[in-house]
Amino acid sequence: MPRMNWLDDVKWDAQGLVPVIAQEQVTGDVLMLAWMNREALQKTAELGRAVYFSRSRNRLWFKGEESGHVQTVHDMRLDCDNDVVLLKVTQLGHEPGIACHTGRHSCFHQRLDKDQWQSVEPVLKDPESIYK
Amino acid sequence: MPRMNWLDDVKWDAQGLVPVIAQEQVTGDVLMLAWMNREALQKTAELGRAVYFSRSRNRLWFKGEESGHVQTVHDMRLDCDNDVVLLKVTQLGHEPGIACHTGRHSCFHQRLDKDQWQSVEPVLKDPESIYK
Repeated sequence: MPRMNWLDDVKWDAQGLVPVIAQEQVTGDVLMLAWMNREALQKTAELGRAVYFSRSRNRLWFKGEESGHVQTVHDMRLDCDNDVVLLKVTQLGHEPGIACHTGRHSCFHQRLDKDQWQSVEPVLKDPESIYK
Repeated sequence: MPRMNWLDDVKWDAQGLVPVIAQEQVTGDVLMLAWMNREALQKTAELGRAVYFSRSRNRLWFKGEESGHVQTVHDMRLDCDNDVVLLKVTQLGHEPGIACHTGRHSCFHQRLDKDQWQSVEPVLKDPESIYK
């Protein structure tokens, strides 16, 4: 019998996906949450760069393929229930790193304040100049 | 017309849930990912402590209700797509904090190493003594 593959340990959801958190290694900032299918997770490990599965485009999404904002992966973690992945990454392509398609460092730029979500992170680069 | 409620800004999934990342405020450690429904998110904001929705038990889960490992919430963030929440928390009930039901600090205790998930975080407290 072949040895159990590490990809088989992951509990994929009904759509064959798993949520993946990208955390910047140096700062500890949580940059984004995206999704991976089996192929994306395998490619991520193989290439040492984040490869997600785009649910809107229904295909593999090599993070940075358009923006140049590639994520180098240093560490891959799986949680206690085997159904969430955490990546420690370096966010390339800009200094400080831009993970968000809005041109911000982190996707989590809206803060709950007085019963409203307020955007509290600056746009580091105009998205129109990121996605030409 | 009544003012739009901040809970309406969240893009709930087909099950009426949203994934929520809990990050320890002081260390920056990502502790866990769990899910919230609308009521859980409202209660979290109201009480200033993490209230999740347990998918296995199909009910609100006041984090720490059994273990005493309550999470105080300092900051609530919403991502650019309005479909992921990030909490900055203090993990109470043990020093260092235990977020995981296995008695570990973080749920992300399995590290991919040589094509295997290896547990790399110590158990800080025997789960049997946490859940009596």
